[in-house]
Amino acid sequence: MNGSRSTNGSKGGYSRTVYYGTFLNVTRGPDTQATPNLPPTYRLVVNHGALWVNETEGRIEGFDWEVQSENELSQLIERHGWDLNGTENAGTFVNIVRSRKERNGFFFPGFVDTHIHASQYPNSGIFGSSTLLDWLETYTFPLESSFGNKSDPNIAPQKAYTAYNRVVARTLSHGTTCAAYFATIHVPATNLLADICHARGQRALIGRVCMDNPETCPGDYRDESSEQSIAATKASMAHIRSLDPSGHLIRPIITPRFAPSCTLETLSKLGALAASTSPPTHIQTHISENKEEIQLVLSQFQQCSSYAEVYDNAALLTSRTILAHGIHLTQAERELIHARGSAVSHCPASNSAIGSGLCPVRTLLDDGIPVGLGTDVSGGYSPSILEAARQACLVSRLVSFQNGAAEKQESSASGREKLSVEEALYLATRGGAKVVGMEDDIGGFEKGMFWDAQMIELGGVIGKDEDEEDRGNVDIFGWENWGEKIAKWMWSGDDRNVKAVWVGGSLVHGKIPGA
Amino acid sequence: MNGSRSTNGSKGGYSRTVYYGTFLNVTRGPDTQATPNLPPTYRLVVNHGALWVNETEGRIEGFDWEVQSENELSQLIERHGWDLNGTENAGTFVNIVRSRKERNGFFFPGFVDTHIHASQYPNSGIFGSSTLLDWLETYTFPLESSFGNKSDPNIAPQKAYTAYNRVVARTLSHGTTCAAYFATIHVPATNLLADICHARGQRALIGRVCMDNPETCPGDYRDESSEQSIAATKASMAHIRSLDPSGHLIRPIITPRFAPSCTLETLSKLGALAASTSPPTHIQTHISENKEEIQLVLSQFQQCSSYAEVYDNAALLTSRTILAHGIHLTQAERELIHARGSAVSHCPASNSAIGSGLCPVRTLLDDGIPVGLGTDVSGGYSPSILEAARQACLVSRLVSFQNGAAEKQESSASGREKLSVEEALYLATRGGAKVVGMEDDIGGFEKGMFWDAQMIELGGVIGKDEDEEDRGNVDIFGWENWGEKIAKWMWSGDDRNVKAVWVGGSLVHGKIPGA
Repeated sequence: MNGSRSTNGSKGGYSRTVYYGTFLNVTRGPDTQATPNLPPTYRLVVNHGALWVNETEGRIEGFDWEVQSENELSQLIERHGWDLNGTENAGTFVNIVRSRKERNGFFFPGFVDTHIHASQYPNSGIFGSSTLLDWLETYTFPLESSFGNKSDPNIAPQKAYTAYNRVVARTLSHGTTCAAYFATIHVPATNLLADICHARGQRALIGRVCMDNPETCPGDYRDESSEQSIAATKASMAHIRSLDPSGHLIRPIITPRFAPSCTLETLSKLGALAASTSPPTHIQTHISENKEEIQLVLSQFQQCSSYAEVYDNAALLTSRTILAHGIHLTQAERELIHARGSAVSHCPASNSAIGSGLCPVRTLLDDGIPVGLGTDVSGGYSPSILEAARQACLVSRLVSFQNGAAEKQESSASGREKLSVEEALYLATRGGAKVVGMEDDIGGFEKGMFWDAQMIELGGVIGKDEDEEDRGNVDIFGWENWGEKIAKWMWSGDDRNVKAVWVGGSLVHGKIPGA
Repeated sequence: MNGSRSTNGSKGGYSRTVYYGTFLNVTRGPDTQATPNLPPTYRLVVNHGALWVNETEGRIEGFDWEVQSENELSQLIERHGWDLNGTENAGTFVNIVRSRKERNGFFFPGFVDTHIHASQYPNSGIFGSSTLLDWLETYTFPLESSFGNKSDPNIAPQKAYTAYNRVVARTLSHGTTCAAYFATIHVPATNLLADICHARGQRALIGRVCMDNPETCPGDYRDESSEQSIAATKASMAHIRSLDPSGHLIRPIITPRFAPSCTLETLSKLGALAASTSPPTHIQTHISENKEEIQLVLSQFQQCSSYAEVYDNAALLTSRTILAHGIHLTQAERELIHARGSAVSHCPASNSAIGSGLCPVRTLLDDGIPVGLGTDVSGGYSPSILEAARQACLVSRLVSFQNGAAEKQESSASGREKLSVEEALYLATRGGAKVVGMEDDIGGFEKGMFWDAQMIELGGVIGKDEDEEDRGNVDIFGWENWGEKIAKWMWSGDDRNVKAVWVGGSLVHGKIPGA
C-alpha cells in the first residue's frame, strides 16, 4: 500500500477521479518589500473547470480551466482516452465528482492544524478562569495521565481509544486533512493515535510527549528519567515509521512538552535524536505563551538569556521545528528563530481562552518566520481550523490595543497588523503546510500536490433555492461575489458546510452530495 | 389576543403545559462589596423536577422540584386536578413536555439580544479590514438605504421582507427570545419588521433609525429634517403599539443612530418624545465604540465635555436607555450613566471584528451599570448570543493586556476582570432582561415570569449513547458535572443544540424532541 493512502475502502477501483466545478485556494502575491507599509497580498484564486487526480498516487495530475460545461467535460474525458464504464485495472477507468453550483459549492484545500493536543480533546471548553500554569495542573495533567494503563502499561486504556477516535473524526469533519498532534507520555496510547490516524486516513505528525523534570512535572505523570524519555520516544517513532515507511501519511515528531517540563539533558538528547535520523525528524514544542511561563524558564535555565536560546542550545531550533504560540517573543528571539528556519503555530483561540495574550502575527510574518494556525485543543476550545482562522482575524484587530512597543503603534496607524480573510485562510492551508514541512505537497491545488481537499457547500440562495437541511449558518442572498462568499464562510461557517473531505485522493469524511 | 402570545398556532388548546426534566438558569449571589477583590458570584442553578406554565398568560405558574419520576409526575397532575385527556375550555387540560436525560437535555432561559441591526443581517461577515466610520460608509449605509422603496415609498421592498424574515428566524433558532432591533430610517420597512416579530412570536423592541445630520449622513440615506425624523418615529411607534397595545411582546424603542448622525435639535426632540409617553418609551443608541468616533463627537458637540454628556443634555440618558458598546468610557461618563440608570449593551464579537477595542466589562459592572450582551449584527458577524457570550469571555481574558490605567493593572493581578461562563450566561439572560427593562418578566425561571425558554440537548455520551443526527459540536464523555456540561455548551454549542424555543409559552422555533 502506498503510504499516502488510507485503508478505508472508499475507492471504487478508479484510475483517476475528475473533480468538476469551482476550485478556490489562496496564494501569496509578489513580495512587498518595496512597499513595507502594506501587508503582502494574499489572493483568493477562483477557478471553474476540471481537475484530475491520479488514484494510485493520490496526487493532482492536471487541470483544465477551459472546461465550462458537461459537454466540455465529456470531451475532456474522450480526449484523454478515459472511460466512465471501465474496469479496475485498465488504467483508464475514471470517476467524476462535481461541486454543486446551486448550493454555492466549491473545492477548497484541506486545513492544516499545526498544533493540537489530541489527548486533551475531552476537556474542550473546560478551563474556567485559569491561565497556563494552573490550567496544566488543574485540568490537563490529570486528564493526560489517565491515558496510561495502570493494570497493564503495555496496553492503551479504552479512554484513550474513545478520545483519539473522536478527535480524529471531529478534526476530519471540520476539514482538517493534516494535523500535528501531541499525544501523552504513554507509548501504547501514542501508538494507538498513530494507528487511528493511519486507519482513518488523516495525514498527521504524531508526537509522544517528553517531560522528565521532577521539579515541575507531577509525580504520577512524568518520564522516569532522561534515558527512559528517549527510549520511549524512540519506541513510538519506530512504531509510527513501521505503519508508514514513506512518511507521507503519518510520521513521528519529537515532542519535548516545553522547556520547563524537561531537563536540559533531555532537551539536548532530543535535539541530537532529531538530527540523527535521515531525513532529520520534525520537532514540536511550546514557546513564550505566557508571561509567568517565561519567567519560569529564565529562572530555570539561568545560563540562557532567552526562552528561544534554551531550545537553540539543545539543537531543537531547526528548519523542521514547530513552535506553538510565540506570543511574547523578543526581537532577538524572533531573529534567532528566523535564522534557524523554525516556524510558529499561531493558536489564537487558545491564547484568548486561557488569557495568554495577543500574538502580533504581522510582526512574525514581517520577520520572515513561517506561520500556520493551530487549534491547541484544549487550551483552545474548538477542533476547527476555521474557528482558528476567525480568531486569528479577531485577535489581529485587537493587537493595536495592547501595551505596545513603538513598532506596534506604527503598524496600528496603518492598520497593517490586521489579517484579512484571505490571509487567515492562507495561514490555515499553505501557511500550515510550510510549518509542517509539506509546502510542496499540500495546501493548494498545484499539479503534483496531494488531493487533500474539502468540498464546501454554503447552501442555496435565501428565498430562492433555500435548503434547510444541514444548511449551517451561512446565508447567501444571491448578490455576493466569491470574495464575499468566502468571507461569509470564514465568519459563519462550520462543519455543516463541509460535505466531503479527501486526503491523498481518498474520501475520509462525509459523502459526495447528490451522488 | 394576549399581547404576549404569538399567532403561530402552535397551541393545542391546553390550559397548562407541564415541563418535566432538568432546568438550568443563572442567578447572582449576594453582593460582594465586603470582598472587593473577588467578582460577584454568578451561580448556576440546577433543578430537576416539574414546572408548569399557564397557557393563557404564558407565564410560569409554579414548580415542584420534588417530582423526580414519571410516577411522581402523574401524582402531581392528579393532585392538581389536571387532565391529560381534557378538552379545550375545561381549564384543566394539561400537556407535558419533557427534556431528555439520555441526550443531556435541559431547559434554559431564552437569550436576550440587547443590540442587533436587523437590516444589516445580509452583510454578516462582510466588513473587510474596516473600522467603524469607514465600515458605515462602505458596507452599512448602502445596504440600509436599499430598504426604502424608490418607486413606492409607502411599501417596503421585497429585500426588506427577505432580510427581516430571515434574521428573526435565525435569531429564534439560536435561542434569542427577545431582541432590541435597529431597523432603518424607513417607516414601512420598520413596521414590516414589527409585523414579522409579532407574527413569529419573538419578543422585541423595534426602533426606526433617526439620522438627520446632513454633514455626516449620506445624501440618499438620511431624514429630510428634524421634523420629518420625529414624525416618522411617531408613525412607526403608533404602528407597533397598534399591533400589541400591551407592549408585552413587541414595543417601540426610540433610536437616534448615534450622536454624530443627529442634529442636537433632533436628539433633544427624541429625548422629549421618549419622556412624553406613559410609561416613558425606551431609547437605544451607540456610545464610545471607536476612538475616532469619540473625537468626531467631541468636535461636533463642542459645548459638551464628553460623549455621554451629549446624550444627557438631550435627556436621552434615562433608566430605559440602552447604550451599545461603551468601550472607551471615562470614569466621569460611567458615573453619569450610572446616575441616570442607563444600561450598556456589550457587543464583543463586533468590537473585535471591526477593531473597536476591548470593553472592560468588569469595570462597568463594578460601577453599577447594568450590562447585557448584543450581537451587533453586522458589525458582529453572528446572530447568536451564545457566540456573544463566548466572545465576552475571550475579550475579558485579554482586557488586562490593553494599554491600561492603574485600575486595570490591579484587576489584572487578581484576574477579576475575567468573566466566568456562568457570568457570561447571566449577561445573556438576566443581564439582558434588565437592560431591556424586563427583569421581572424574563431571564430566569421565577414564578410569574414569562415562559421564554429554550430546550437544549448536548447529545448522548460519546461511545455509549452516541447520536450523530443533528448532534452539533459538543461532545459529552459521561464524567462531566452540570457546570462542566454548561461550559462545554457555551464554548462549543450552536443552534444544533437548540431543539425548541418558546416565547410567552408559545413554541416559536423547532419541535419537541421525541414528541
